[in-house]
Amino acid sequence: MPGTDTFLSVNEARTRILAAVRPLAPVSLALAEVHGLVTAEDVASQVDVPGFDNSAFDGYALRAADVAGARADAGVSLRVVGEVAAGQAGEVHVEPGTAARIMTGAPIPPGADAVLPFEDTDGVHWAQKSGAANGEVHVLETAEPGENIRRRGGDVARGDVVAPKGRVLDAAHIGVLASVDVTEVRVHPRARVAILPTGDEIVEVGDPIAPGQVRNSNAWGLDALARRYGAIAERLPIAPDTEAGLRAAIRHGRDADLLVTIGGVSMGDYDLVRNVIASAGRMDFWQINMRPGKPLAFGEIDGTPVIGLPGNPVSSMVCFELFVRPALLKLMGHTRLVNPMVQPRALEPMRSSSGKRTYVRVTVSRDGDELVCAPAGEQDSFRLTSMTEGNGLAVLAEGAEIHAGDPVTVIALDEREMLLLSQPATLIP
Amino acid sequence: MPGTDTFLSVNEARTRILAAVRPLAPVSLALAEVHGLVTAEDVASQVDVPGFDNSAFDGYALRAADVAGARADAGVSLRVVGEVAAGQAGEVHVEPGTAARIMTGAPIPPGADAVLPFEDTDGVHWAQKSGAANGEVHVLETAEPGENIRRRGGDVARGDVVAPKGRVLDAAHIGVLASVDVTEVRVHPRARVAILPTGDEIVEVGDPIAPGQVRNSNAWGLDALARRYGAIAERLPIAPDTEAGLRAAIRHGRDADLLVTIGGVSMGDYDLVRNVIASAGRMDFWQINMRPGKPLAFGEIDGTPVIGLPGNPVSSMVCFELFVRPALLKLMGHTRLVNPMVQPRALEPMRSSSGKRTYVRVTVSRDGDELVCAPAGEQDSFRLTSMTEGNGLAVLAEGAEIHAGDPVTVIALDEREMLLLSQPATLIP
Repeated sequence: MPGTDTFLSVNEARTRILAAVRPLAPVSLALAEVHGLVTAEDVASQVDVPGFDNSAFDGYALRAADVAGARADAGVSLRVVGEVAAGQAGEVHVEPGTAARIMTGAPIPPGADAVLPFEDTDGVHWAQKSGAANGEVHVLETAEPGENIRRRGGDVARGDVVAPKGRVLDAAHIGVLASVDVTEVRVHPRARVAILPTGDEIVEVGDPIAPGQVRNSNAWGLDALARRYGAIAERLPIAPDTEAGLRAAIRHGRDADLLVTIGGVSMGDYDLVRNVIASAGRMDFWQINMRPGKPLAFGEIDGTPVIGLPGNPVSSMVCFELFVRPALLKLMGHTRLVNPMVQPRALEPMRSSSGKRTYVRVTVSRDGDELVCAPAGEQDSFRLTSMTEGNGLAVLAEGAEIHAGDPVTVIALDEREMLLLSQPATLIP
Repeated sequence: MPGTDTFLSVNEARTRILAAVRPLAPVSLALAEVHGLVTAEDVASQVDVPGFDNSAFDGYALRAADVAGARADAGVSLRVVGEVAAGQAGEVHVEPGTAARIMTGAPIPPGADAVLPFEDTDGVHWAQKSGAANGEVHVLETAEPGENIRRRGGDVARGDVVAPKGRVLDAAHIGVLASVDVTEVRVHPRARVAILPTGDEIVEVGDPIAPGQVRNSNAWGLDALARRYGAIAERLPIAPDTEAGLRAAIRHGRDADLLVTIGGVSMGDYDLVRNVIASAGRMDFWQINMRPGKPLAFGEIDGTPVIGLPGNPVSSMVCFELFVRPALLKLMGHTRLVNPMVQPRALEPMRSSSGKRTYVRVTVSRDGDELVCAPAGEQDSFRLTSMTEGNGLAVLAEGAEIHAGDPVTVIALDEREMLLLSQPATLIP
């Protein structure tokens, strides 16, 4: 049995996993499918946005020169020669001494070089259409040429890159891509992760259970985590504790982009997952100098990376956050792979476990101007409920002793909640 | 035209919208469907977890009294009477002077009251099964009664509430619910939001476009935002600028839990959405003392709340974050409805626009120990691209003048990115 000092560190293990994982080959997906995905190439616009000079206001399109002498108490009269609504190609022509009613977004009619909003004109009320068209309007303000005109290409010019390669497409990007009529985008697809629970004692949720058996809970929790990070998760049927059974089950997962097994990587007689990975493919490493999660295994079968998670519920979730999450993000083309963290002060002492990098489930809360944290209940790694109680994972360096009041690194398990906790009390509501 | 001082404030408008929106009636959904949803009642466990006393280690189940005299240099010999693997109901009985090999998670056999891991026993190597069973083991440590035994109900006792009413179900909860064999959960369902783009000038993405027309971009961006916040979004066909056409289109959206219209709420001749809401249902308010987004309208039709967003791309996204997002969250049973915010220092002066609550798209970045922010490009509300450039919305109070160096409230548009920006440089990698 190797000594603690020969185990890989968490950072080395993560580096090796990430070195073995490559971004998935780009695919072209419909616009409705690409929210949250990462572009695999620059997306350039084929069109100008706006596609034509248009009005920024409801008002009058006119010639700036005609209203050079306008004042609030001495309006300039212009003959209203028609109106242009949004979506209408202009048939109106604005000659000297005339103006056209125009709606926000409507094309600037030929001859006009400025727009003044209704508010800068006389008593022809904006809500009363009758009487204005084909009548007269008194303009009470001067206008600069180009004023209140949104220029063709003012937002996006043809050829502009609207989404550079490597960008995570958020909702604003989806809107911009729609605005330039992009119907398909070249992206890294969602990673397909197969989740394989193993163990003769594991019984599926809803199935009859016998004494000594336990529910297949980990696969459900990890499935939810994988989806949360944008992957397509598949829970495979529970594999038995036999080499033949495991080998057959793992074969089901080889079409996935990443195979995650649960259990069977410890040191017991029935911990066969490593043997099966080694015989069906290649083992890279086993055992990490951390707690919980020490027995984590990593290898590959037919080019599919395989992460063997420990079977303890907390260990499997902690290892998922530390190793599976960045692997999934890298597969999907992300380059920022670190877990979001905060740095509260410890309310109680915490110490790392016998020289290992130690992860302690904590509850981060706000105390006046600062964040504080305390361990969330008992830390036994079989107690999954502690994960529902805490909102972070305190990271204790190998050998670290944290005293009450010390700053401590905490991985946020829920970014939104942690950001809400972090915000100062002095914000505008 | 009412003066600025008669417009509703942002806070009043949000309060009125939220007062009109009730959490959706609870439904029972399968476990696979409830991740991210909010429980509508306490979920209590019908079972104990673990369901039986079991071993926390691979090792030997024994009687503590038998090893009271054990020392590292003077082991106590016990006869190994068999072994228990996880998932096996015990047939082994541990009499005085005997021990049973046991695997992690396996039931404690009758007679045994403690477990010692292989490491606390002699040279019978943990990986070598042969020779141990039906042989002898030398125990080199004492054991307390109950040591290394995970007690039945130690994680969850029958009757324990594993997910209280009002809890957002995260991945750990899904795991815990699976562990207690919950197959259906009573939750508030995802909100169904119908998104109705309006305007004769609007053309669907991918369709032929004529001069003067523009793409239906806003509905795509808002659709992505709605999904991001957990809603089920439906983009309705584009409605024309006629009362009859709008009325028919709005009818399509009345089955939704929330109808969101885009455009047609300003002061132009073709801004008919308010009229249609008022004639088909009831208008609550129109116009908010804010920029961008002033013409926002709110009402209801046949009990379905209707939020009329302005047609400008930036206005519609800003108003979505401020008004639609909390409404969707409340419909889905959430109680924390505020936007996550940070408080960087301004790098440049910013001022609110003529007495209005003003939202400025900003880029928040890290400068040493603190967050700073600066406006993200031009702020014209028709420039959707600025939303892709910034990562936050600075909130300038009515009449506020922010000087360089002042703290400023910023709504985070991406919680994960903002949390990554907020983290100190001194964290453990």
